[in-house]
Amino acid sequence: MSDWTNPYPRWEILTETDVGAIHDAAMTVLEEVGIAILHEPTRELLAAAGLRSDGERVFFDRLLVEELIALAPPSFELRGRNPERNVTVGGDHMVNCPTGGAPFVTDTEGRRKGNVDDYVKLVQMTQAVPQLHCVDSGIVELLDLPVETRHLDMDYLCIRHSDKPYMTVGATKDTARDCIEMASILFGGRAAIERSPGTIAVINPASPLQWDARMLGSATEFALANQPVIVTPFLMAGATAPIGLAGGMAQWVAETLSGIAILQIVRPGTPVVFGGYLHGTDMRTGQPTLGAPETVLGILAGGQLARRYALPYRGGGAWSSSKVVDAQAGYETAMGMWATMLAGTNFVLHAAGMLEASITIDYEKFAMDVEILRMLERLLFPGMPVDAERLAIDTIREVGPGGMYLAAPDTMAHFRDLYASAMSSTEDVDRWRAKGAKDTARVATEAVQRLLDSYVDPGLDPAIDEALRAFMAERKARAGT
Amino acid sequence: MSDWTNPYPRWEILTETDVGAIHDAAMTVLEEVGIAILHEPTRELLAAAGLRSDGERVFFDRLLVEELIALAPPSFELRGRNPERNVTVGGDHMVNCPTGGAPFVTDTEGRRKGNVDDYVKLVQMTQAVPQLHCVDSGIVELLDLPVETRHLDMDYLCIRHSDKPYMTVGATKDTARDCIEMASILFGGRAAIERSPGTIAVINPASPLQWDARMLGSATEFALANQPVIVTPFLMAGATAPIGLAGGMAQWVAETLSGIAILQIVRPGTPVVFGGYLHGTDMRTGQPTLGAPETVLGILAGGQLARRYALPYRGGGAWSSSKVVDAQAGYETAMGMWATMLAGTNFVLHAAGMLEASITIDYEKFAMDVEILRMLERLLFPGMPVDAERLAIDTIREVGPGGMYLAAPDTMAHFRDLYASAMSSTEDVDRWRAKGAKDTARVATEAVQRLLDSYVDPGLDPAIDEALRAFMAERKARAGT
Repeated sequence: MSDWTNPYPRWEILTETDVGAIHDAAMTVLEEVGIAILHEPTRELLAAAGLRSDGERVFFDRLLVEELIALAPPSFELRGRNPERNVTVGGDHMVNCPTGGAPFVTDTEGRRKGNVDDYVKLVQMTQAVPQLHCVDSGIVELLDLPVETRHLDMDYLCIRHSDKPYMTVGATKDTARDCIEMASILFGGRAAIERSPGTIAVINPASPLQWDARMLGSATEFALANQPVIVTPFLMAGATAPIGLAGGMAQWVAETLSGIAILQIVRPGTPVVFGGYLHGTDMRTGQPTLGAPETVLGILAGGQLARRYALPYRGGGAWSSSKVVDAQAGYETAMGMWATMLAGTNFVLHAAGMLEASITIDYEKFAMDVEILRMLERLLFPGMPVDAERLAIDTIREVGPGGMYLAAPDTMAHFRDLYASAMSSTEDVDRWRAKGAKDTARVATEAVQRLLDSYVDPGLDPAIDEALRAFMAERKARAGT
Repeated sequence: MSDWTNPYPRWEILTETDVGAIHDAAMTVLEEVGIAILHEPTRELLAAAGLRSDGERVFFDRLLVEELIALAPPSFELRGRNPERNVTVGGDHMVNCPTGGAPFVTDTEGRRKGNVDDYVKLVQMTQAVPQLHCVDSGIVELLDLPVETRHLDMDYLCIRHSDKPYMTVGATKDTARDCIEMASILFGGRAAIERSPGTIAVINPASPLQWDARMLGSATEFALANQPVIVTPFLMAGATAPIGLAGGMAQWVAETLSGIAILQIVRPGTPVVFGGYLHGTDMRTGQPTLGAPETVLGILAGGQLARRYALPYRGGGAWSSSKVVDAQAGYETAMGMWATMLAGTNFVLHAAGMLEASITIDYEKFAMDVEILRMLERLLFPGMPVDAERLAIDTIREVGPGGMYLAAPDTMAHFRDLYASAMSSTEDVDRWRAKGAKDTARVATEAVQRLLDSYVDPGLDPAIDEALRAFMAERKARAGT
């Protein structure tokens, strides 16, 4: 298993009473305010399940919701095409996936539209980093390819250049079907991926309290194929959610659980992830205040709610609104990733590369985020093991008062256990100047090159490759692209 | 009371068994390896207390150590000359103090030796920031003043320009006496500060396992005056401590408790703080790897040990090895300050301004660190209150599915509750460019000016001012400076 295990207690900012009050408010919202379901087939399903409605608005009975979400597994396995890279989503596991959804890509040359060349490099970097466990088919939009069929190319390029599990990009009924078909080809047929999921998808409500036809069409396909779905509202206090954070949490729970309930009606037992974000809003710019206290509180509270429902959790990540790899990018990411770990997040989307609040993916930011992931990994494992060898009383005795440990045999044997940063400078200022006075962004450029150089092509079975290409060619011909 | 209260559970990385094993190893070191006491008066005191010795090495009996440290109070009050600024050190309290000990100061003009002009500005900035609760007399070395008497000027400038509690700089027997005398003048006599401490000092062992005459001379004076003493080893794994972190913790405990035991022999009940650091070592440069996993683990483990002994804790802070306010400075500080809060640190020295691993204090870094302190403050208070008003079910009902909260009366009434950053940019890239494409370091320059502009001189009673000046004049005349 290639993901992380978080051995520490979760850090909880809400009391049990608080969690109960948020749950109760969410249930009241589901029962009394209801959710707008802008998708007739889903409304029909919900009516058949006995839910009351008024026009597009459906009222979710709390007992039924609790019954439905109990059908979802508390954790599930997600396959990589290399079985050694399989991951578990749920429990004490933490799976990191780079950022996704950006239309732009940035490096030292500047900022440009997403394109195949950068896409492939970013997938290769993901493949090369042990701290990233899952590839993201939406790592950057392929704006140089036709919109009708670019989902095929995106999923294919992930499959081709990485043997890790991958998150699929299909976000409509038809694209979801295509993506499910490609996963089926990869893993030996539809029955095979229905038994053991071959990809994972994300759906987002049109907050507040609304599911559109596009998302529900996509979600239905993934559920029918038993592929896991991450249900993720993106809420901004005072804009798409109440200004009070507790109310934002109640709305988050109502939206996420309504999505999960729908998925369980479509196919009971569909693996799901309780996802979501609650950010503050910068009233000067109308943008979310990523990395601010509201974000951190939302990440932590979200984890507590997910545990209340015994569901895997997605929240947090290396969010940043900064335009460059500066101190803001550093502290926003570190603030967010600490909260992510403390919350017990099971699936971390946006774990590497985000700048401009996900308008762009940045190579240097990617490398910096990998540095932060490497630090967190050490914190989780090995942490601080306490045993006779490491207590080292005999070494302390030998070195004695006023002595020096540098030359001790114990030091010589274990100095490689110390964390060695690929990015942080500990040199004195003179040596740092003599070496070019590089700030983190410039050091990161070198780290990016090392990541690209370290990529090893995992290859792809030629028969599968050919089948995938044939499927894409057929779809593209049909779409006329 | 002006400090912070940390309402959350501590986050613990060690099991109770681990804590017990580290304690036991530390006691074995104290009993069998012993501590070099390079100060004859202290050795005599320890002999009189019944401790065995061999030359300079004194062996501390574990039962006596446990008895002695139990004499120290679990928390104590530290006075500001404005009683509204008094702080409590211990329990759930968190007191922040800026960085100290740097010989250099840096701003956009460059790096220069510590001097009175910068010193005063840095004290004024500390006074102006509500998130900093204590002034640091060692905020930068006054290299433009004679070494024999500059401690007088440093303590005086803190007293003159701030009405917050202050940490004193006296670090030898004679300078400690001077500093105690100045606190006595400020607070109405020696008996007054013996009843209720007027300043706080730090002592550091010459690790490993060694106390020098200078520190013990200073510590003795502070203890005789009942002024609190923070006992702080600075350990580097593989250099001044064993390469294994557990062994480093055992050595830390042995050093800190030996110092506290001595203080309790000098004057039972002397307020103390269990302080310390354990960092990794960058074997390429010989420097500590601040902000790395070892630092974070050390901060968290130190908090657990301090609680084991029911003592206030000092550890953590806004440490950074970076030379500039770049991403490294951002993530190192955020990594460290999260750990500091999670560890339940009671007294945070180096909470603002450090660059170059404390070789310099930097104005922009100071402003950036204040931003991080402001974020942590919000996390602690108000956190995420859950009550009917904030759950806002009626607002959710009124806005309804597909609605917008921006114009809701609840939003209008409370939007100022959202965190507004003085530093982080949430603008889109075009607007950010139009406004000068400023990275955090440049934004911080403006924040520094705002801090300086917001300073309000608290004044100083002319009689006290005159008495302090007369005392300093007499001391300087005697020293011929």
